[in-house]
Amino acid sequence: MPETAPAPRSAAWETLAAVMCDVRALGGAVSLLQWDQETFMPAKGAVARGDQLAAVQAALHERLTQPRVAEALDLAEREASGDPDRAAALRALRFDHERAARVPQDLVRALAQAQAEGVDAWKAARNARAFALFAPKLARLVELRREQADALMPMLARRPEAQPDPGKIEPYDALLEGYEPGMRVTRLEPILRRLVGWLSPLVAAIDAAPAPEDGFLSGRFDGEAQWGFTLELLAALGFDPAAGRQDRSLHPFTLGLDPGDVRVTTRVYEAQPLSAIFSTLHEAGHGLYEQHLPGEHRRSLLCAAPSMGIHESQSRLWENLVGRSLPFWRAFLPRLAARFPQLAGVAPADFHRAVNRVERSLVRVEADEVTYNLHVALRFELELGMMRGTLAVSDLPEAWAARSEALLGVRPRDDAEGVLQDIHWAWGDLGYFPTYTLGNLYAATLFAAAGRALPGLDDAIAAGDLAPLRRWLAEKVYRVGRRKDAEDIVRDAAGVGLTDADFERYVKTKYGALYGLTL
Amino acid sequence: MPETAPAPRSAAWETLAAVMCDVRALGGAVSLLQWDQETFMPAKGAVARGDQLAAVQAALHERLTQPRVAEALDLAEREASGDPDRAAALRALRFDHERAARVPQDLVRALAQAQAEGVDAWKAARNARAFALFAPKLARLVELRREQADALMPMLARRPEAQPDPGKIEPYDALLEGYEPGMRVTRLEPILRRLVGWLSPLVAAIDAAPAPEDGFLSGRFDGEAQWGFTLELLAALGFDPAAGRQDRSLHPFTLGLDPGDVRVTTRVYEAQPLSAIFSTLHEAGHGLYEQHLPGEHRRSLLCAAPSMGIHESQSRLWENLVGRSLPFWRAFLPRLAARFPQLAGVAPADFHRAVNRVERSLVRVEADEVTYNLHVALRFELELGMMRGTLAVSDLPEAWAARSEALLGVRPRDDAEGVLQDIHWAWGDLGYFPTYTLGNLYAATLFAAAGRALPGLDDAIAAGDLAPLRRWLAEKVYRVGRRKDAEDIVRDAAGVGLTDADFERYVKTKYGALYGLTL
Repeated sequence: MPETAPAPRSAAWETLAAVMCDVRALGGAVSLLQWDQETFMPAKGAVARGDQLAAVQAALHERLTQPRVAEALDLAEREASGDPDRAAALRALRFDHERAARVPQDLVRALAQAQAEGVDAWKAARNARAFALFAPKLARLVELRREQADALMPMLARRPEAQPDPGKIEPYDALLEGYEPGMRVTRLEPILRRLVGWLSPLVAAIDAAPAPEDGFLSGRFDGEAQWGFTLELLAALGFDPAAGRQDRSLHPFTLGLDPGDVRVTTRVYEAQPLSAIFSTLHEAGHGLYEQHLPGEHRRSLLCAAPSMGIHESQSRLWENLVGRSLPFWRAFLPRLAARFPQLAGVAPADFHRAVNRVERSLVRVEADEVTYNLHVALRFELELGMMRGTLAVSDLPEAWAARSEALLGVRPRDDAEGVLQDIHWAWGDLGYFPTYTLGNLYAATLFAAAGRALPGLDDAIAAGDLAPLRRWLAEKVYRVGRRKDAEDIVRDAAGVGLTDADFERYVKTKYGALYGLTL
Repeated sequence: MPETAPAPRSAAWETLAAVMCDVRALGGAVSLLQWDQETFMPAKGAVARGDQLAAVQAALHERLTQPRVAEALDLAEREASGDPDRAAALRALRFDHERAARVPQDLVRALAQAQAEGVDAWKAARNARAFALFAPKLARLVELRREQADALMPMLARRPEAQPDPGKIEPYDALLEGYEPGMRVTRLEPILRRLVGWLSPLVAAIDAAPAPEDGFLSGRFDGEAQWGFTLELLAALGFDPAAGRQDRSLHPFTLGLDPGDVRVTTRVYEAQPLSAIFSTLHEAGHGLYEQHLPGEHRRSLLCAAPSMGIHESQSRLWENLVGRSLPFWRAFLPRLAARFPQLAGVAPADFHRAVNRVERSLVRVEADEVTYNLHVALRFELELGMMRGTLAVSDLPEAWAARSEALLGVRPRDDAEGVLQDIHWAWGDLGYFPTYTLGNLYAATLFAAAGRALPGLDDAIAAGDLAPLRRWLAEKVYRVGRRKDAEDIVRDAAGVGLTDADFERYVKTKYGALYGLTL
């Protein structure tokens, strides 16, 4: 059959297409339940929400793991359809089916329930600034994740790249695989070690240089005016308001129910105007990815990003490579100043310097580009310890404080400033944080490639025209969906895969200039 | 075993308890998807929302209809648990299981998809004021409902009360049963005929009397101030804001995900201040019912109202029997006037008269208590015609206009004013409208009983204290949940079941006095 012929109908494929449609739809329902839980749900709805998430996730798991899915996969994989999209969808379904089928239904339910309880306990603990209120729920989540990893490890050990020493696979790898297919501790640890290696002296050098002036960011910035500016940013980036919305939540996030229905959230602090601006830019990056996923595959598993790392590369690209650049503020500082007269006299170069202030700080989500990966290294170490059983949950606050001091040079005054700052562990996400660093690295590599491909990109950005960049990224990254693996997408777009070289060049060039350092 | 012993554990019961928990949880997820569809969903999310609703409803249907549910029901029904709640839960599950098991999975999916498409088409048709845009979707829904009725009729025909002439059961009965268990066309038609019989001369008599003065309701009433007053009403009625929320939607509705998570919606028209007030009171009645359902049974089918008619009795009771009473406005007119100075000089008696203006109008949801049931009679006739196949969907606009003229004395100028005014058919709800009239009748009977049980009720209401009435209704109605049938709840609370006698007495006394008629 010639490669260009339409893919033949087949009973096995029809079965799998129906399964994928349901899996996507149930996933969308889960996303809505989660979005609502963080935005509009009344407090007393929490218990039932746990039941609802557990039941929909169980239905999804059941649909994905039915024995007839395995049978149909075996059949369909042997059929030569001549359709590369069909082949890619089958690979994605095979991967998801195997990961799901190995985890018992009871464990899936227990995890969903523990996640819902974890979020509530985390909120209470954060309010009370007391980790002890969250500890039992986290211990339970770690225990369940270890059970899950045990169930999944044989799948990883069987892979060609695990030979000849499959014993090197460890439980944390099985969790990583859920966010970043193919990523392993043995590949991640050296990258993080290398990063810490050149970042530490850089942070020390910056620390010794005079800090940029940012007094104009003090004072009160009206919350409604901030909100209005975040909506202006969303519009400028090309986030389609008919295919998504922004709401408020304690911890900003993005959930895509469908390319036509993408929910981003942000938070507004009247004393910290940069918080809403950069969290909106960050989530808008995720949101643009979701809105530009291949809608013609909306009922297939191809309508998704292949990994969290590549997803994060887009939030970081728009937040940092674009949003913390001088051209960007040439375009947008006048618009911001139109809402906040106290910024009227500030020059774009001074604003650019102020939004790139490097600080040894406590809070990851407010961290600058230079120290951010040190926050990730901290979490990675602690997660690895919890999963390896070398770090007890009860020892976490002290371990956090000690490693924070070692890596970042600062020690949290209490649990809320330290170990309770992120919601991720409350969601049961272990192995997720490293994808932030992968995102930073992919972002730098992709942005460098965009600069080569789009002459005059800086001028377009300085004129407030973000469309050329968005279109390039949509074509090279977003619209690919899950047809390729993350690293292949980056390689095809940029000519190089996972590397910290572009990130190192970007950071040293930018911060060397900003802080007058010779690096 | 003595009746007071704790109910024994049994494998069959445990199986069924898990099924009920999932059914409730999946039902909650469906409610959230529907609520979001009408409140916050972006326009381009509609296609995926159809898939999501279909997938979750299919999962619910599958869970309810598994063969092992039937097996466990057979076993559990033979076990004497000594627990009346367990027995009631088994009756409810048997009913729901049988209704679901008789409808093929494909039909369930087709209905969910047709409903989602129906809502979108109805919105477009309403905007364009053109029924033709909605007609094909409605025709499809009627066709699917007829298929569903065909599947369900044998279940009704087997019932003791259908003997000796099971042939009298008709398709519409099978749909009615889904909203009002036990209700039949043969019982409903005479009641509606009787109502039309005494309402028609009453409307004629009122029509001949001078209309009340309501000029003070003209002009602009600020939308935000109206919204604030609706929140004040919710608080006064005792709607718990930690267990629910109010948002805006085109058509007001209430969805209870759980007693701890009840969503009501309303709409605000600046030129029609009564619209938001009475739709909030109406939905708050539904909301109070949902918030006071037996939370200790939140994972069981008992945590629900036994019928739509009894649910509606509570929206109508709070909207009309309370909200359109003179004592109520003695308490709340000063609060309303505090937000709207143009009402400062109005006497409660004049306001009371104005909010009870009887009019031959076109729009059901804005209709007064006297003509409301005539709107229901109109829809019942047309639905029965569609289900019997004696009325084609394409003939619906003209049939609506003609019957509107005959029953209400007014003819819609276009489809938006007429056949497109309600969202219910877009949801695929046929057989639902009659429950509004059942609600009106139950409301009058229950309010009369409350008046007998609570001496000084009018004085409490006039003092703005609605707690005694809410507590009485919570005890007699809301907290019963689905332990009893609707009519048994009314009979136990009021000493009498379904009757129009209390409603007739209430309407004739009130409107006789308001319009100076001798009835």
